[in-house]
Amino acid sequence: MAKTPWGGRFKVGVDDLMRRFSESVSYDRRLIDYDLTGSVAHARMLGETGIVTREEAGRLVAGLEEIRRDHEAGRIEFDPALEDVHMNVESILRSKVGEVAGKLHTARSRNDQINLDMRLYLKDAIEAAMDGLAALCRALAGSAEENIGAIMPGYTHTRKAQPVPFSHHLLAYVEMFLRDRGRMEDCRRRMDLCPLGSGALAGTTFPIDREMTARELGFAGVTQNSMDAVGDRDFLLEFLSAASIAMVHLSRLMEELIWWGLPEIGFVSLPESFCTGSSMMPNKMNPDAAELVRGKTGRVIGSLNSLLVIMKGTPLAYNRDLQEDKEGTFDASDTLIDCLLVTERLVAGMKIDAERMRRACSTGFVLATDLADYLAGRGVPFRDAHEVSGKLVRHCEERGVGLEDLSLSELRSFSGAFEEDVKDWLSLEASVNRRSLVGGAATSEVARQIQRLKTVLEPL
Amino acid sequence: MAKTPWGGRFKVGVDDLMRRFSESVSYDRRLIDYDLTGSVAHARMLGETGIVTREEAGRLVAGLEEIRRDHEAGRIEFDPALEDVHMNVESILRSKVGEVAGKLHTARSRNDQINLDMRLYLKDAIEAAMDGLAALCRALAGSAEENIGAIMPGYTHTRKAQPVPFSHHLLAYVEMFLRDRGRMEDCRRRMDLCPLGSGALAGTTFPIDREMTARELGFAGVTQNSMDAVGDRDFLLEFLSAASIAMVHLSRLMEELIWWGLPEIGFVSLPESFCTGSSMMPNKMNPDAAELVRGKTGRVIGSLNSLLVIMKGTPLAYNRDLQEDKEGTFDASDTLIDCLLVTERLVAGMKIDAERMRRACSTGFVLATDLADYLAGRGVPFRDAHEVSGKLVRHCEERGVGLEDLSLSELRSFSGAFEEDVKDWLSLEASVNRRSLVGGAATSEVARQIQRLKTVLEPL
Amino acid sequence: MAKTPWGGRFKVGVDDLMRRFSESVSYDRRLIDYDLTGSVAHARMLGETGIVTREEAGRLVAGLEEIRRDHEAGRIEFDPALEDVHMNVESILRSKVGEVAGKLHTARSRNDQINLDMRLYLKDAIEAAMDGLAALCRALAGSAEENIGAIMPGYTHTRKAQPVPFSHHLLAYVEMFLRDRGRMEDCRRRMDLCPLGSGALAGTTFPIDREMTARELGFAGVTQNSMDAVGDRDFLLEFLSAASIAMVHLSRLMEELIWWGLPEIGFVSLPESFCTGSSMMPNKMNPDAAELVRGKTGRVIGSLNSLLVIMKGTPLAYNRDLQEDKEGTFDASDTLIDCLLVTERLVAGMKIDAERMRRACSTGFVLATDLADYLAGRGVPFRDAHEVSGKLVRHCEERGVGLEDLSLSELRSFSGAFEEDVKDWLSLEASVNRRSLVGGAATSEVARQIQRLKTVLEPL
Amino acid sequence: MAKTPWGGRFKVGVDDLMRRFSESVSYDRRLIDYDLTGSVAHARMLGETGIVTREEAGRLVAGLEEIRRDHEAGRIEFDPALEDVHMNVESILRSKVGEVAGKLHTARSRNDQINLDMRLYLKDAIEAAMDGLAALCRALAGSAEENIGAIMPGYTHTRKAQPVPFSHHLLAYVEMFLRDRGRMEDCRRRMDLCPLGSGALAGTTFPIDREMTARELGFAGVTQNSMDAVGDRDFLLEFLSAASIAMVHLSRLMEELIWWGLPEIGFVSLPESFCTGSSMMPNKMNPDAAELVRGKTGRVIGSLNSLLVIMKGTPLAYNRDLQEDKEGTFDASDTLIDCLLVTERLVAGMKIDAERMRRACSTGFVLATDLADYLAGRGVPFRDAHEVSGKLVRHCEERGVGLEDLSLSELRSFSGAFEEDVKDWLSLEASVNRRSLVGGAATSEVARQIQRLKTVLEPL
Repeated sequence: MAKTPWGGRFKVGVDDLMRRFSESVSYDRRLIDYDLTGSVAHARMLGETGIVTREEAGRLVAGLEEIRRDHEAGRIEFDPALEDVHMNVESILRSKVGEVAGKLHTARSRNDQINLDMRLYLKDAIEAAMDGLAALCRALAGSAEENIGAIMPGYTHTRKAQPVPFSHHLLAYVEMFLRDRGRMEDCRRRMDLCPLGSGALAGTTFPIDREMTARELGFAGVTQNSMDAVGDRDFLLEFLSAASIAMVHLSRLMEELIWWGLPEIGFVSLPESFCTGSSMMPNKMNPDAAELVRGKTGRVIGSLNSLLVIMKGTPLAYNRDLQEDKEGTFDASDTLIDCLLVTERLVAGMKIDAERMRRACSTGFVLATDLADYLAGRGVPFRDAHEVSGKLVRHCEERGVGLEDLSLSELRSFSGAFEEDVKDWLSLEASVNRRSLVGGAATSEVARQIQRLKTVLEPL
Repeated sequence: MAKTPWGGRFKVGVDDLMRRFSESVSYDRRLIDYDLTGSVAHARMLGETGIVTREEAGRLVAGLEEIRRDHEAGRIEFDPALEDVHMNVESILRSKVGEVAGKLHTARSRNDQINLDMRLYLKDAIEAAMDGLAALCRALAGSAEENIGAIMPGYTHTRKAQPVPFSHHLLAYVEMFLRDRGRMEDCRRRMDLCPLGSGALAGTTFPIDREMTARELGFAGVTQNSMDAVGDRDFLLEFLSAASIAMVHLSRLMEELIWWGLPEIGFVSLPESFCTGSSMMPNKMNPDAAELVRGKTGRVIGSLNSLLVIMKGTPLAYNRDLQEDKEGTFDASDTLIDCLLVTERLVAGMKIDAERMRRACSTGFVLATDLADYLAGRGVPFRDAHEVSGKLVRHCEERGVGLEDLSLSELRSFSGAFEEDVKDWLSLEASVNRRSLVGGAATSEVARQIQRLKTVLEPL
Repeated sequence: MAKTPWGGRFKVGVDDLMRRFSESVSYDRRLIDYDLTGSVAHARMLGETGIVTREEAGRLVAGLEEIRRDHEAGRIEFDPALEDVHMNVESILRSKVGEVAGKLHTARSRNDQINLDMRLYLKDAIEAAMDGLAALCRALAGSAEENIGAIMPGYTHTRKAQPVPFSHHLLAYVEMFLRDRGRMEDCRRRMDLCPLGSGALAGTTFPIDREMTARELGFAGVTQNSMDAVGDRDFLLEFLSAASIAMVHLSRLMEELIWWGLPEIGFVSLPESFCTGSSMMPNKMNPDAAELVRGKTGRVIGSLNSLLVIMKGTPLAYNRDLQEDKEGTFDASDTLIDCLLVTERLVAGMKIDAERMRRACSTGFVLATDLADYLAGRGVPFRDAHEVSGKLVRHCEERGVGLEDLSLSELRSFSGAFEEDVKDWLSLEASVNRRSLVGGAATSEVARQIQRLKTVLEPL
Repeated sequence: MAKTPWGGRFKVGVDDLMRRFSESVSYDRRLIDYDLTGSVAHARMLGETGIVTREEAGRLVAGLEEIRRDHEAGRIEFDPALEDVHMNVESILRSKVGEVAGKLHTARSRNDQINLDMRLYLKDAIEAAMDGLAALCRALAGSAEENIGAIMPGYTHTRKAQPVPFSHHLLAYVEMFLRDRGRMEDCRRRMDLCPLGSGALAGTTFPIDREMTARELGFAGVTQNSMDAVGDRDFLLEFLSAASIAMVHLSRLMEELIWWGLPEIGFVSLPESFCTGSSMMPNKMNPDAAELVRGKTGRVIGSLNSLLVIMKGTPLAYNRDLQEDKEGTFDASDTLIDCLLVTERLVAGMKIDAERMRRACSTGFVLATDLADYLAGRGVPFRDAHEVSGKLVRHCEERGVGLEDLSLSELRSFSGAFEEDVKDWLSLEASVNRRSLVGGAATSEVARQIQRLKTVLEPL
């Protein structure tokens, strides 16, 4: 039985089942680099403030850096009997620098230490997610620019609605992903405070310099209440919320790529290298990457839900329930970052069939709204104009023709307000370009948005 | 069968079951005030830009304002056959101002209209939540100030850990609720854009002035992509996330109030007027308000989860699934705002038993960490000091005495490092006040935080 | 201030905010019929056992039945100040029969009473859901029978895979909905126990006859532990789980109806009377009913999630958190039952375009697997056969032709194993009918399944 | 680049990122034993039906069994480039038995194969969960029997309500866990059908004997619709639902163990070997095991939620989203089984302080209901009796005495109905034992239930 760090008070040791059930090093080992970084900063501060001697601090730092090098070289063996990454590091440190290792934990508890590690981890995860979001936005804006002339039927309710530039559709996702990025940024700003010094729950009695450690670790400040700090997992909840919303956006885009890529639709084809076939059916080329991203959305939402459930109703300050915060967070951040990368590659690699898109606009009466607008512009009350236009749609549908196939006299048999110019009015380009207001579908406006977004994205 | 606004294109009318299944006016009627406000601004803009005449705009505005007054007076009857609040308003408007009512919907679709209504609604809900959070923070800070001298055992793992001022514990919640407020503020800032002009999905062909409407409605700007705007429910997801996290905080506080109020603990007693009894058991005085708040946490988390599920995988732009965004949002915002108010009243009305708190510190060996620190301060390595202190705890526990009951010679039989001054060291006040670093439990630091927070809260 | 049923022990009354916050009559009024039924059975039993006189029991029953009639006639006014449906009924009863009303609550607590009411409610909700599921299965099997000859491309990964009878596809859903029905049935069987007699938590001191009440109320037995019974909401959790899974099935079917109805696909058209149009776009005919069902899936999943969160970590026996079990359950059962009905109508009303389905089988190389099987049947190892078939698909795709367009010599240039009979092999009917094993796609097997299912469904 | 099993149709290979993103062998390797078992049965059937020769079948079976032995000996290396466990096994098999390996996949697709593997896995997981539930029930019933005389205050709303035998409280959990077991059993029964033969979606053209394979694999029958079978994950959803409800039960018990073990309450003490201390605070002995079980509840609920989200809205038949069904299921079943075991050990190892329980009954006026019942039994209407009893409670509370401390004359000053015998009436044992109806708190009834449950549990 391994020695616990609390032996004095206990008569019996930890049950083997309990040891296996409660250990976390099998997954929190992933935090080792952050743990070492935090310990180095803490050791330096202990030395600067005279809580340990400078010489002791130097030996601690040297030992910690040696562990880091060992870890990078794959030479660290973690021992589950030592429960978590902190105790593993301390034990290895002792084997390297001797008893002075015991001084590292002065003025520190695992409660503030793990909170620090998770904050450092999350700052990196957020950075990676923000980079992934920016890269995806660039890929979307790039494709939008490249395909600026392609006009497709815009859909609502999965039914053709009005023509829109394909680029306009792509830029809608840029808006979403930029909001996601903003949420990530807000999360990072709000949690950018160093919890070290909060101790187990009440702070520490040692004259530590919290600001010094915070500065060295790159935090903008320090937490203001020790009990809050050790029991706080808001930053994880906020990240998981932002990640879930971002995954929902990805899932919407994937749904569209899957259906746009349907041979029956054929607006885009996804890169073969991100599709897979079937071991049974030789004809298959499946959009697996897109399906996986869509499916993984459930996974991230599940992790958010888990942590909300875990935190609900737990009293202050630290409870062991909080140990369950890690695997879901790791999984969600890995998943998000991977999905962003895969989506970026899908977007960058997809091939657009502008001809197919345009042809698709020839059915579905996508200019019916323009027809009603034409009448409204000639003084017909909009409700009447809508009625006339609806009847014309039904008329054409029953005859199997398009609105543009109707002669002027046919049109006039539905409303006398039609004139010769209705024919020019009913072109795709004219329809799109009439929507030139801010945020509208006109090619000029889309081009303007692309320029604006490039400026926004450039420094990200 | 009531007339639908799309009759021209359809051969048959809406099935009665479908009418009942798809109507939303039974709950979106709640948006009528926002709907009217949006329509007034839209009508004014139509008049200013010459899309309708100023006179027509005036009649529309007058009619809309008359509806508002009727509504305030309880004189509006909603007709479920008219599907939603928008069609109800338009129908009433027609009865008031005649055919010009049909011009109100020029350059507008219900897709951008409902998005606007929900944004206006949410801005108010956020404002109310932010006010509720500020009021609760003030109540907590007020109680902290009032009870500054009360020392209680701080807990981790629901077991006594170290003494902390009760005020320190309360202030932990102020930190949480201020973060909640920050999340609400970020959500509001991010969604503070007017979607009007996005039309059904592609924008409008009419030369509207989006900035004018946005300004009149108090938005900071306009949305930049029409397809994004009509399918966007991010602002609701973000609000529901922030609300869920806030509810988790409330649930943690409720859990503590419930257990602090347990007669066996007795740290606080909740106001009788927020407790209820039993129809069967005459002895009961139950903390129902706190239990309800704790339970309602599940409800808000459920609403967040619902909307994430609803949005997942839906293609652009608008789909009818999105209609399901409303009831959960209304319920979550009502619940949050009510729970904040109830909690504020619980906090303001609870009675503190400082004597009971202090007495509770006499068991549980809450000064054991200080004892170890004492030894560490006298050169004993911390791991050894911890071991000695742990053994002393076990020793006392077996004898049924406290650490402070041990004589110096007894102490010295465990470690020669104990001196006469250990007795002074082992007082509650000394223990607490040694933790005077930023965010620590020392009374002076807590007092400083109270002042800081009062400054923060004052303008909110 | 209304009188509470626990006045003696309290010094002050209930705060108005608390009254509003904690009342449940605004939604549990819906339980009044079950509450009356339970009270009638309870009163009769009290009379039979001599706990009250037979004459008193008779007056109680008469009063309760009068309330039921009043309620049916819409003559009951509920008073929120009386908190819940139970206290409202008791108060009305007192106004009808005088002080004997107070005897009704003998040997009963609201804790076992509300548990009873919810069980009675749920039994009816389950019955309705089971009926709805059976009706939907009948509609699906009916359409399957009617369209037995229609062959469509079966999809995996939203890509054409192999030809299957449309009926085979519909019957897949019958399997799902029959499992849903089984889960409902299991839930009902497990919860079919009367909790009356559990009192507040410890049972009652009165010599009641629990079996008699249970029998009268149609339960199969009585609960076996009073503390479990009053804190038990398993039956709601199990129902919500079963409902969520059923909604997931509905959402999958809706997704398919939406896409099958896409004009680009055109396999089915949904009944116009369950579609809606657009107030702006005259061309739109949207599958709103299907979208709403799909969206409402999120709502039911959210309610399940809520109740799991609410129950998590609550100590025994009854806690006020449990009051939050109702609205989500009501909403989920209403939603499920409505969605089943709407779906049944969609299925019964949809029009199948068998010609379009067959035509769709002419692209996508849906016979490629059969081609590989052909070769495998002639001794070519399957992996090689798959490779040859895959190359033929690529070959055809590049030339824009189908597999059936290739001449024998072309085929033989890929593999010498092709013979004249390959042409007959490559027909849709032959392909489908080769899959004649149990559960396979062959028309004969599908017909057999239809007969089997009709026998299963007939008595439901 | 590794060779894919669908090379013929594709021009380019799988991108490395895609390979990493889509591989599943890193977690589905866990299914290898089930995969081998399924393949052995499939191979034998292929031999029996003459689809392959008996000799070929023999070589396949021998090769598969050799892989099983290698795996047991830890000699299998999985190659992520081979995507999943199936392709890994096939590749290893080929290295062992040569090209005949390619015949194993005859009449099978990975779609039905993975569905089979998951069913076999789940049957074992359910068995383990059912065993764990039975063992926990035995531990609870055992403790109930051992501590049959201990009377504790029963709580509602976390406030003392009425005295109950501690055993009665424990048995409440036995009821819950037996229901959980029933749900597991129902799930197993419903999913006990072999999907092999469903192929990719349409069944297979080979004359396989589905019943033979099903029998050999221990299934009760075969699935009836191939499209349903390959896209069906109901059995996982149903299991996750049952597991979530069971975890909620565990979390409720853990909440109680945590608070019963609070030194301030002291009803039970948890085994030290399942507690842990603090590296900083020498006084701590924390109920970590219980906290972890409570926390892990969130994890299982999260997995249920994930899979519901994943399945929602996916069209038939198989989609790659479904690959995301595994990790959550594995995690949830492992978590449940571990938590059951840990809880069993906690229950078996906890020490009961019956004296402390009894003493706790001396406060909180737990006999107030009995006092009201006393009066009601003497003809006082219950509402009046309740009022008198409530006033007596308030009276005692203000004086700091108990109900049993009041003299007869004091009692009579509140109601003339009190007689000498009220003193005997107000004993704990008398109170408890008056509740002798079925499911009541009387010791005799509890003893009867223990015997009943032992009979129920004995064969499990």
